[in-house]
Amino acid sequence: MTYCVALRLEEGLVFISDTRTNAGVDHISTFRKLHVFGVPAERTIVIQTAGNLATTQAVLGYLQNDIALGKTPNLYSVPSMFEAAEMIGSLIRKVISQVTDDSVEQMNYSCSVLLGGQIKGEEPQLYNIYPQGNFIKATRDTPFFQIGESKYGKPILDRALHFQTPLDEALRCSLISFDSTLRSNVSVGLPLDALIYRKDSLMIPTGKRIYEHDPYFEDISRKWSETLRKGLQDLPTPTDDYWN
Amino acid sequence: MTYCVALRLEEGLVFISDTRTNAGVDHISTFRKLHVFGVPAERTIVIQTAGNLATTQAVLGYLQNDIALGKTPNLYSVPSMFEAAEMIGSLIRKVISQVTDDSVEQMNYSCSVLLGGQIKGEEPQLYNIYPQGNFIKATRDTPFFQIGESKYGKPILDRALHFQTPLDEALRCSLISFDSTLRSNVSVGLPLDALIYRKDSLMIPTGKRIYEHDPYFEDISRKWSETLRKGLQDLPTPTDDYWN
Repeated sequence: MTYCVALRLEEGLVFISDTRTNAGVDHISTFRKLHVFGVPAERTIVIQTAGNLATTQAVLGYLQNDIALGKTPNLYSVPSMFEAAEMIGSLIRKVISQVTDDSVEQMNYSCSVLLGGQIKGEEPQLYNIYPQGNFIKATRDTPFFQIGESKYGKPILDRALHFQTPLDEALRCSLISFDSTLRSNVSVGLPLDALIYRKDSLMIPTGKRIYEHDPYFEDISRKWSETLRKGLQDLPTPTDDYWN
Repeated sequence: MTYCVALRLEEGLVFISDTRTNAGVDHISTFRKLHVFGVPAERTIVIQTAGNLATTQAVLGYLQNDIALGKTPNLYSVPSMFEAAEMIGSLIRKVISQVTDDSVEQMNYSCSVLLGGQIKGEEPQLYNIYPQGNFIKATRDTPFFQIGESKYGKPILDRALHFQTPLDEALRCSLISFDSTLRSNVSVGLPLDALIYRKDSLMIPTGKRIYEHDPYFEDISRKWSETLRKGLQDLPTPTDDYWN
């Protein structure tokens, strides 16, 4: 399983992915699911992947190969994030169709991709690309996307996140979303990859890898548990009619 | 969809169910999914259901019919909660097999049941009964079960709930679990049915129905959102290496 979240906010973009892949519970490996591309001062492009590892590696392989060999269009030549999303959507369809007769129905080979970033002259953008190759774009109303095991970590994002949320608070919120998911589903696992992109910086961030026993992650995880426990205790006592 | 949660704690049992059923998003109805049986001073039995409504109504129909006509064994004659779980498991298999050739594979007709309660002479017990008719029992290590749309509301239970949690705190925790689920999945809906059973009381509680604009539920929902927002803001600022 996988959990990836990406936020498109007023101040920029936030991306976090886990790294656990599993074929059955007895075959667990670590693979990076957050990938950064870019040309400094010109474009920053971040891709997060979930689903069949052979499919997602093939999609990334084509993207990297096309850049390396100068084939066009490639991620460094497309003039807009929209065309980057189209390109990745087509690649996903192509890769899946190479191993199956019916690309849409054979979901064992499927994958989902989050694509975020900024190309000079555009606003930062975030796309959720489906295995069918089509995609949707994050808006002010819906400033985040999740792929993979998304449900455990969704309530905190639903409650606490808005387009105007500052980047550092949004990062904390996303890390808590991950912490909840890690606790509830063993198939999502550390280390995590986190990356923050500040709007209009057009820098290519290296991001941070969060390993087990990361002091900051452990600290906020423990404090969050305390917040919830204390918060529950501080809620008003149930009214008498609950005891009927 | 459906969400039901049941807790077996040192002080007793807590049950909450939603009431929304839907066949497609344009065909939504309200049906009770929490059902109470009992003989005062002798046994209290609570059943929560998720899944195909015709299946769950048939299972409850057989249970009620057998009691009304004095057929044995029935829920009022079985000598233990274990035998009650066995009886309901058999009924589920029977009902599903009446409408399909292969009871286990035809999951469209399937249902899940939580069975909790106490029969005089026994400890309070809680069972999670699968569509195949087999079941598991809650223990001190795992004091709660969920059926239906369980993921959104699981993190708060995972973090805050233990066998020793007092009933009123466990009720608040369960209501917050429901609030998170209601916000994240529109197919789980108000009103809710909540019921608390105090260990060894052998009383038959009527429980409380929580309608929209219930003052207490709205109050804790609002306060919980404030707790989370403030909790996030109070978490320490991400370390510098997150901004690489």
